[in-house]
Amino acid sequence: MFSVTVRDHMMIAHSFRGEVFGPAQRLHGATYVVDATFRRPELDADNLVVDIGRAAEQLHAVLGELSYRNLDELPEFTGVNTSTEALARVVADRLADRIGSGALGEQARGLTGIAVTLHESHIAWASYERSL
Amino acid sequence: MFSVTVRDHMMIAHSFRGEVFGPAQRLHGATYVVDATFRRPELDADNLVVDIGRAAEQLHAVLGELSYRNLDELPEFTGVNTSTEALARVVADRLADRIGSGALGEQARGLTGIAVTLHESHIAWASYERSL
Amino acid sequence: MFSVTVRDHMMIAHSFRGEVFGPAQRLHGATYVVDATFRRPELDADNLVVDIGRAAEQLHAVLGELSYRNLDELPEFTGVNTSTEALARVVADRLADRIGSGALGEQARGLTGIAVTLHESHIAWASYERSL
Amino acid sequence: MFSVTVRDHMMIAHSFRGEVFGPAQRLHGATYVVDATFRRPELDADNLVVDIGRAAEQLHAVLGELSYRNLDELPEFTGVNTSTEALARVVADRLADRIGSGALGEQARGLTGIAVTLHESHIAWASYERSL
Amino acid sequence: MFSVTVRDHMMIAHSFRGEVFGPAQRLHGATYVVDATFRRPELDADNLVVDIGRAAEQLHAVLGELSYRNLDELPEFTGVNTSTEALARVVADRLADRIGSGALGEQARGLTGIAVTLHESHIAWASYERSL
Amino acid sequence: MFSVTVRDHMMIAHSFRGEVFGPAQRLHGATYVVDATFRRPELDADNLVVDIGRAAEQLHAVLGELSYRNLDELPEFTGVNTSTEALARVVADRLADRIGSGALGEQARGLTGIAVTLHESHIAWASYERSL
Repeated sequence: MFSVTVRDHMMIAHSFRGEVFGPAQRLHGATYVVDATFRRPELDADNLVVDIGRAAEQLHAVLGELSYRNLDELPEFTGVNTSTEALARVVADRLADRIGSGALGEQARGLTGIAVTLHESHIAWASYERSL
Repeated sequence: MFSVTVRDHMMIAHSFRGEVFGPAQRLHGATYVVDATFRRPELDADNLVVDIGRAAEQLHAVLGELSYRNLDELPEFTGVNTSTEALARVVADRLADRIGSGALGEQARGLTGIAVTLHESHIAWASYERSL
Repeated sequence: MFSVTVRDHMMIAHSFRGEVFGPAQRLHGATYVVDATFRRPELDADNLVVDIGRAAEQLHAVLGELSYRNLDELPEFTGVNTSTEALARVVADRLADRIGSGALGEQARGLTGIAVTLHESHIAWASYERSL
Repeated sequence: MFSVTVRDHMMIAHSFRGEVFGPAQRLHGATYVVDATFRRPELDADNLVVDIGRAAEQLHAVLGELSYRNLDELPEFTGVNTSTEALARVVADRLADRIGSGALGEQARGLTGIAVTLHESHIAWASYERSL
Repeated sequence: MFSVTVRDHMMIAHSFRGEVFGPAQRLHGATYVVDATFRRPELDADNLVVDIGRAAEQLHAVLGELSYRNLDELPEFTGVNTSTEALARVVADRLADRIGSGALGEQARGLTGIAVTLHESHIAWASYERSL
Repeated sequence: MFSVTVRDHMMIAHSFRGEVFGPAQRLHGATYVVDATFRRPELDADNLVVDIGRAAEQLHAVLGELSYRNLDELPEFTGVNTSTEALARVVADRLADRIGSGALGEQARGLTGIAVTLHESHIAWASYERSL
């Protein structure tokens, strides 16, 4: 199995609901350093997993929908705890949609899996992985 | 599949038995930077893999049982080579026990797997992963 | 010249005023991974720059005053752009005050300089250094 | 499942063929920081996944066959795009051959899998994993 | 003293002349992860060292002049060993020129120093620093 | 001013004397990831700060005198707290001696300063710098 990973980041504000979150119930924020991993069992005709330039570009576009925003104010997150693990899934699902719509190129349709890791600090990170 | 990872460290002394270890047969030591990864297929009611505060706290407690010690003198390691990979299992199994006993909270009982990586230097690390 | 550095982090929300900030004029947030460096020309009686446990504890306390907060709502930042570089100075000055008041121990009074670096992402960081 | 990883690097020149590569069609180069991971379900008689000294030595030997070279001039890469993902497989397969020939020791024959990651920059890396 | 650092990278081919370089006399290549640090004693009117967006943009432009190229073929490096330390100076001097010409904005004229670090691998890097 | 840094590591056991050290008064150990920085105002005839191969080799030799040892048993550390900062000086002074004796080559006599950083974990490190 082959994989390629590209890294980017986003900076957001948000708050959590639930006693388990302690002081993180207050409005605060995070930088998420985001690693998006693309997987396939065999390389394409160019000997690639994916066009890395396009992969980076699409990851940047997905993060651009969230970055420099207060997630509490985005309609899609109403009543949702935007935990690091939940956001990892949001990013992975949006990348999967873009792969499906051809935004990463025709050859990217050969991808079979995707994983997204969000690093919230030097001592904590979360991932979500799924098939395509 | 979702995962959350927390990082901590421990500093220990030990020695190895067996020619394969060369100079590491002498009493020496290591800092292990430890990554503990918790996995589950679906998020809990708070949209979490695990309460990250509790996860960090329990990892710290497990490492506290070993840190600032000479492992050669601990009864549980008599006659055992405390290699990085063997210690990864010790930490993972002790975390699994704590999950089982409820120390990470009731919701943590939904965890299905755990992985522990011990970084012994910038150029070498070892991991152990198991189901729960 | 000797130095010792300890690392911790804080997670905050804020916004900026001024066209130069572009989308960062919106309420967003950041994780700052914070490195606090303590300097002195000669070691103390224990062969140390500073008691590293106390240094870490005081850095954690200083960051605790800001973490999990919206900096726009804190009185001390009214009308102030809380840029990464400006926050580096805030942290350094507050640590300097604590050193002056003896919170890092009597021997820490031998420190002659301090530097604070805030990493806002994997591709950007800012520092402030001053004498004591 | 246990694993041990060792890190080393190589510095090479190469060029790519295909419009997808844009400016990387020109002769350029890369430092690949290479992580080689060795896996097995149970530890050997020394409580190890693999003799880490030998593993590092063999990885260094494999990388030495490629490092400080222009890959475009090596016969084995004639007509081949030496993408990061393709090179990850080359390194993994060569390590697998060495394991098979006993270069990592008799006990290394208990290894069941190998994974190789090549980091081409701080924002991009590729992996290949296979069974043994 | 304040500073802000931005990170980017370039991928180049080159060779060295001189026995001291051993196998690096052959055509090979490198990824340089590049950190550019901008310094000034007091912050500007926006509470900044420099507009970080512009700093990143200008660093990217400077690296773009070298990236995906064989440095041996560039006229400005004829007869020059493009060592990591020598390239650090090239990047720093070109950034200094751009600051002087106003490309980083009028406020960037208040900068008093610059430092550039090129990481050639996980175990080696070189820097050049100068005043403005 | 130019500099070149090389990274290596050592693994040692030791204990500390003094209440300030708390549990670190017990025999324990550490991995020190060691960065040795060499400085000079102008490059040598090969356009280098120092022959990086020789620098790495001499750093490795200096660390080899300490690695895989219990520092409490080495005569040169009798009655000495081998704190991270104190060890940074030991490594720097030994490298300075080797530079003085010509072990890094004749051209290395043009070096004017050296700095050594020992990373004891992902959250703490210490440095010592001196002129030559």
